[in-house]
Amino acid sequence: MNDLFTTRAMTDLFSPRAMVAAMLRVEEALARTQAQITIIDDDTANAIAAACRVELYDPDAIFAEGATAGTPVIPLVRMLTERVDEKARGYVHWGATSQDILDTAMVLQMRAGIELLVRDLREIAEHAATLADRHRGTVMAGRTLGQQAAPITFGLKAARWLSLTGRQIHALDAIISSDWPPQRTALPLQFGGSVGTIAAFSGAGLPIAAGLSSEVGLPMFDVPWHAERDRIATVAATLGVTAGAMSKIASDIALLATTEIGEVSEGVQPGKGGSSAMPQKRNPVDAMSALAAARLAIALVPTLMSGLEQEHERAIGAWQAEWVAVPHIFRYTAGAVMHVRQALAGLEVHEDRMRRNLGLAGGTLMAEALALALASRLGRVDAQSVVKAASERALREGITLQRAALEDTRIGGVLSPQEIEWALDPARHVGNSSEMIDFALEMFREQS
Amino acid sequence: MNDLFTTRAMTDLFSPRAMVAAMLRVEEALARTQAQITIIDDDTANAIAAACRVELYDPDAIFAEGATAGTPVIPLVRMLTERVDEKARGYVHWGATSQDILDTAMVLQMRAGIELLVRDLREIAEHAATLADRHRGTVMAGRTLGQQAAPITFGLKAARWLSLTGRQIHALDAIISSDWPPQRTALPLQFGGSVGTIAAFSGAGLPIAAGLSSEVGLPMFDVPWHAERDRIATVAATLGVTAGAMSKIASDIALLATTEIGEVSEGVQPGKGGSSAMPQKRNPVDAMSALAAARLAIALVPTLMSGLEQEHERAIGAWQAEWVAVPHIFRYTAGAVMHVRQALAGLEVHEDRMRRNLGLAGGTLMAEALALALASRLGRVDAQSVVKAASERALREGITLQRAALEDTRIGGVLSPQEIEWALDPARHVGNSSEMIDFALEMFREQS
Amino acid sequence: MNDLFTTRAMTDLFSPRAMVAAMLRVEEALARTQAQITIIDDDTANAIAAACRVELYDPDAIFAEGATAGTPVIPLVRMLTERVDEKARGYVHWGATSQDILDTAMVLQMRAGIELLVRDLREIAEHAATLADRHRGTVMAGRTLGQQAAPITFGLKAARWLSLTGRQIHALDAIISSDWPPQRTALPLQFGGSVGTIAAFSGAGLPIAAGLSSEVGLPMFDVPWHAERDRIATVAATLGVTAGAMSKIASDIALLATTEIGEVSEGVQPGKGGSSAMPQKRNPVDAMSALAAARLAIALVPTLMSGLEQEHERAIGAWQAEWVAVPHIFRYTAGAVMHVRQALAGLEVHEDRMRRNLGLAGGTLMAEALALALASRLGRVDAQSVVKAASERALREGITLQRAALEDTRIGGVLSPQEIEWALDPARHVGNSSEMIDFALEMFREQS
Amino acid sequence: MNDLFTTRAMTDLFSPRAMVAAMLRVEEALARTQAQITIIDDDTANAIAAACRVELYDPDAIFAEGATAGTPVIPLVRMLTERVDEKARGYVHWGATSQDILDTAMVLQMRAGIELLVRDLREIAEHAATLADRHRGTVMAGRTLGQQAAPITFGLKAARWLSLTGRQIHALDAIISSDWPPQRTALPLQFGGSVGTIAAFSGAGLPIAAGLSSEVGLPMFDVPWHAERDRIATVAATLGVTAGAMSKIASDIALLATTEIGEVSEGVQPGKGGSSAMPQKRNPVDAMSALAAARLAIALVPTLMSGLEQEHERAIGAWQAEWVAVPHIFRYTAGAVMHVRQALAGLEVHEDRMRRNLGLAGGTLMAEALALALASRLGRVDAQSVVKAASERALREGITLQRAALEDTRIGGVLSPQEIEWALDPARHVGNSSEMIDFALEMFREQS
Repeated sequence: MNDLFTTRAMTDLFSPRAMVAAMLRVEEALARTQAQITIIDDDTANAIAAACRVELYDPDAIFAEGATAGTPVIPLVRMLTERVDEKARGYVHWGATSQDILDTAMVLQMRAGIELLVRDLREIAEHAATLADRHRGTVMAGRTLGQQAAPITFGLKAARWLSLTGRQIHALDAIISSDWPPQRTALPLQFGGSVGTIAAFSGAGLPIAAGLSSEVGLPMFDVPWHAERDRIATVAATLGVTAGAMSKIASDIALLATTEIGEVSEGVQPGKGGSSAMPQKRNPVDAMSALAAARLAIALVPTLMSGLEQEHERAIGAWQAEWVAVPHIFRYTAGAVMHVRQALAGLEVHEDRMRRNLGLAGGTLMAEALALALASRLGRVDAQSVVKAASERALREGITLQRAALEDTRIGGVLSPQEIEWALDPARHVGNSSEMIDFALEMFREQS
Repeated sequence: MNDLFTTRAMTDLFSPRAMVAAMLRVEEALARTQAQITIIDDDTANAIAAACRVELYDPDAIFAEGATAGTPVIPLVRMLTERVDEKARGYVHWGATSQDILDTAMVLQMRAGIELLVRDLREIAEHAATLADRHRGTVMAGRTLGQQAAPITFGLKAARWLSLTGRQIHALDAIISSDWPPQRTALPLQFGGSVGTIAAFSGAGLPIAAGLSSEVGLPMFDVPWHAERDRIATVAATLGVTAGAMSKIASDIALLATTEIGEVSEGVQPGKGGSSAMPQKRNPVDAMSALAAARLAIALVPTLMSGLEQEHERAIGAWQAEWVAVPHIFRYTAGAVMHVRQALAGLEVHEDRMRRNLGLAGGTLMAEALALALASRLGRVDAQSVVKAASERALREGITLQRAALEDTRIGGVLSPQEIEWALDPARHVGNSSEMIDFALEMFREQS
Repeated sequence: MNDLFTTRAMTDLFSPRAMVAAMLRVEEALARTQAQITIIDDDTANAIAAACRVELYDPDAIFAEGATAGTPVIPLVRMLTERVDEKARGYVHWGATSQDILDTAMVLQMRAGIELLVRDLREIAEHAATLADRHRGTVMAGRTLGQQAAPITFGLKAARWLSLTGRQIHALDAIISSDWPPQRTALPLQFGGSVGTIAAFSGAGLPIAAGLSSEVGLPMFDVPWHAERDRIATVAATLGVTAGAMSKIASDIALLATTEIGEVSEGVQPGKGGSSAMPQKRNPVDAMSALAAARLAIALVPTLMSGLEQEHERAIGAWQAEWVAVPHIFRYTAGAVMHVRQALAGLEVHEDRMRRNLGLAGGTLMAEALALALASRLGRVDAQSVVKAASERALREGITLQRAALEDTRIGGVLSPQEIEWALDPARHVGNSSEMIDFALEMFREQS
Repeated sequence: MNDLFTTRAMTDLFSPRAMVAAMLRVEEALARTQAQITIIDDDTANAIAAACRVELYDPDAIFAEGATAGTPVIPLVRMLTERVDEKARGYVHWGATSQDILDTAMVLQMRAGIELLVRDLREIAEHAATLADRHRGTVMAGRTLGQQAAPITFGLKAARWLSLTGRQIHALDAIISSDWPPQRTALPLQFGGSVGTIAAFSGAGLPIAAGLSSEVGLPMFDVPWHAERDRIATVAATLGVTAGAMSKIASDIALLATTEIGEVSEGVQPGKGGSSAMPQKRNPVDAMSALAAARLAIALVPTLMSGLEQEHERAIGAWQAEWVAVPHIFRYTAGAVMHVRQALAGLEVHEDRMRRNLGLAGGTLMAEALALALASRLGRVDAQSVVKAASERALREGITLQRAALEDTRIGGVLSPQEIEWALDPARHVGNSSEMIDFALEMFREQS
């Protein structure tokens, strides 16, 4: 069922085969680096590299043995060693420990995973920007605590989605940026040997680490971080916030799509959103899947944060839980992002319904605007109380706030019918929505 | 990597194929029930039943289509309908909604999953009982906040594991017990049709539900519970506590196996617990995997609890997240239980090391016992302060508490050397350990 | 701000003063028990008991010192010792350790806290029962994934709330029930001395524990449980599910109270639910607070579950976190329960609006009913497709489903206008709602 | 009990009184800004400002009323309005909504809270730097999965703490940095009026917002963010990671302080770390409290992340939960940081014990080093297997690895006794520890 809440691309990126491939890439890079520094000869490195092709291995067998060994690197190294000639055998995995391979492989995958996420997020931002621009004049009810509150424009709502999405893109981009000093880089190489001292090379450990870093294409670390997992937890937290951000957009779509509001629909697509029992149903399935995926992603964040309590030089339990938690948080976050992208790509905006809904409840969502119009004449306190009375009468008697206002002598005493009509016109009460949309679009274009 | 932290049996139970099989079992039972009540004829029921064989379906295709549809039941029902003759086609899935099928199928799987867990837990209880009995006289250091505190027996520790495990067995057994009234039963049938009214049968819905309940072998519900998911959250919570309970035992094993304590080891097994770099390593891999699995299981509990906030008659997001969260919590809990079972099955107990460790820190873990022996002569307050001074001297000067006590005139003034020796004998200071072991064993035998 | 999401009674129950009082109650009971067994004399016990009055202590000072000591029991015992005469001084806290006092005190508070919760839950059940009975004929739209789906009755929805609440009452009642054998009792006495062996009494520990159990009014334990915290985690989980259950009811109220649905309102009360800016607002503040409180309660569950990973005979960190997590989960759960109680106590049900909403979207929520009526004539598959077409036309053209059906020749060919009207009458399509309400009421009366 | 796991300063910062003071600061700044832009006159602004003194208010009364109103701003604005003269009354809270005040006040508090955290973290970094430098030559056992693995230096461990702490300082500093563009700034002003349009000022909303931003000393927002809470969740996540980072250091201290390892102790302090029963106990109470506090902090992260699913223009439940969750996560994180600071400030490092522990288990932690020394002669695979056999013999027979190596003909055949001795000298097998310490210190000095 997992597949309902993720993407094929992210599933492939963290597949058992891809995991083995990533570990082999690290083993190969290690051999090549050691050849460059002439710790081993080129033939040995070539022999090892030749055996580092994922097609030669059965991922299932590796992970099955790994379950007993406690790490898949042990069977992998054994099998790799078997696949090289006698001479090279002693140089496989030379000076490394399991965690060096696993962490570095996972870092490679995480970086690729972030790129996948950013790609989809950029599309979301594009959609949001288009909606913000197109609907800058589309007035609709703003709603607080589920109640109609005062008018907004759909463009402003989309601009808020845009700003929200932009921050996620920025935060994810920052993780894989190459501008960080080693101490702060989010996802560097791991290479420390058994306990982080890089002790296998009589003092030549750091040059090898530096060479490996460029061979494998990852930033150098400051000190080995095998038992300091704040970097992993920070990446997980960034994904958790991104997943949460998606759930905001999905929630807006799901709520606006409810029958009684009906202001947006997800696009029609064959086989999408029907019901096994109800022929009329057109469910917002992408919003639904995004909401489910976001919940699943966020669940993993505390696992990775509480996993920072790591024992000594390698944790027993907390580190190993990452092997599952990290791929899963990437997969579910990808699902949340993809489904929001799909929902926005085909979003139908029902402007007529937005307009009609403004008149529900007698148009009492304009009460604040009327109170503001009255405030300069009656003072804020009295204005509020007069309008509150008129609103309550409108709601009680099922008449419009306009009529209640016209019939209220305290209101009619200071505002003309024309002024009342203006005060109650939603389109005149959307404040700086348009300028804020412009600003959001400008910031988005700068980021792109 | 998931497979490191689960069992094959639980993975199979919740596999895509098994999920399809469970859904088909519900569809078949529905048709058979309707035939019994003569809503449909026997031929129709037989035709539907014949198409409800899992071999006829491609689970991947069902879940792939389900990702678009928003539920795998829609493609499943379509495919099932295609597989029956013209006449029966109209009676497939008759009166049910997707959630009836999914929930009931999941309940069937959850009940089977609990049985798997209980089976392994019983083995753990057996091992703990054996250890409790065998080691009722094996004195070792009790430790609080990581410090040697006072002596216990290893048997008492095992009796605490036994009691802990016994409660998990009881709690899980209670879920699948058949003694509950419908309102309280933890995992009943779900059958309510589109919105829980069972409206498709002109009032005959309840007899059909009752028939389906017995046909599918599940307790009848009180009222449909499609949007009241406390039952699911309660099961998840019970699994979370069980996983946590396993982490207690695993933590004890991991800590006692640390090099400096060395009081237990996990059993030797080819390919187990080595290191890719360190030849001497013998890692407590089962404890490690249990600890990782428990973390992963517990992470899912709040997802299912916060998922209780469900909208109206069917939630958008919170319910669907269960489809992933429930199988996963079963899988990880199974992993935690299995690894603890394996760890206990082969546990090596190093009694000599337990004995030797009692003498570490000059035997100051007997300070409380000495203070108690002195209390009747000096009063509790003075006794504590005298012994504190002697303990500190022992620790500071690296001598035994016995020597410090013999040389302390206030102690020597009221206790003879013989009395001091007795007071400092760990075996004389294990209180009611043995009776408590007996009681735990007795309660275990009653439960079995 | 905490106070917005809890109750005064629960805050008082877990106040610093109440915590000190509970600890003193345990210390007093310990002295009295020892006097009964003639380990200490009556004068000593009376002297200790006389000093166990909470008025004699400054809770703030105790907790401030406790922050340094690592436990408030150390300063408490010191102060208590200072308050008794020379002779009794040696017998204060005799044979106990800090955790015995803290755990037993917390168990006393937890039991009282559960009683408070159950009291409010019973009121909720009463309200739900009244609503279920009163509104058994109040037809409204059932909604799935936010879309109008098919009709239900408001009575059935209330019956589901009743069943949900009844299960929480049952689960909480079971915790404090006296029917459990010692091994399973959820909240027993804790008394084990420093490491759980009850070693201070030369073998007489168990009778003292038994005496203390009856003196303090708590069930006896099976084996000391100082480092096996499944009982605490289970209680926390039960509260978490209860809080979640409250969020289901609160969510229903909040959603039904949205302006566009408008089917319920929370009762009016001076100063409740207004806005600082919008005069017309009438916010469902109790639902809001219940939802916030439930989120805060559930957050603590994984803390207590992952806290089961406890080191040796007393954990370092995981146990101490309970001191905060347990009171907080009680406080927030109490808040969720109280606010749902208030929301239901004054709930206004707008039957006219429920009726009116059934006609929204052209009454297409009756599509399933129409398809069922057609199924016997056209077969289920064709019936669904015919009705789907009619529903889509109704939605597209803004006409009623009834008109679309009358104008559809395939429908008109097999159903008379009268039959179509019947098929589209929501009140005829609520299935077994009424019988299920009866059953829920019956189960509730049995439980009461 | 909360106070055990937090600091006085952070408790004060988020006290009810401080919360009221912060809200009044925003109300005052709003009036002053409006006077500057001549929307109101100076007298009015002065009158409002004069009433914005926290001494004039009873925080308890405000929050008690706020519980009914649903927000404390409603009673606060009412009381504030009562405290100004007739003329100014209409201009109190002009154009703002409750959330503008609450969010901006909370942002002010969060910024101050981060400064408090950073101050303590800098002290931790200082301590870690000192330890790293002082103990660059202090060889000790590195431990993986609880087992002695290979030697490290205590200096390298401290350098890892330093790097870890440095990243937390950086991440927290970045939040309150003033270098961000408005879209990315983590904690900006909130000012949008009822639904985020700033509609009260006939188009002049943005200049007022800009003025308010500089008056209150907070960065300007891009678009109002009332319902997009990723910024809050990101701050919470950063605190969660920081708390987790503290738990790593605390865990190292707690584990190294266990009786059997005994390599560090927390500093002695009157009234610290004793036991109510065991006179010899010297518990690592600061590590304990840090571990407990970190658990409590992390628990709140998912609450704030899942709270991103916010309805429309203001959430019902998810936003309000922040009012509790944000202060609490600051308080517990402060507790974790403070206790680690205290633990490090007085840390006693037992170098003798570190040295002695290297010889435990026959010095088999040097197995890897011996295998490396042999690898160039025997090949890596044979070297590993020869050393594994020697290690196992050493462990089995209780002899040293050195003796087992000397007696092993395959080892003795290629290494001289002198070479064996060298290979087994821990001080020769700490790799690049010293260079990495230097690098960590250099990075730290750059950051400072």
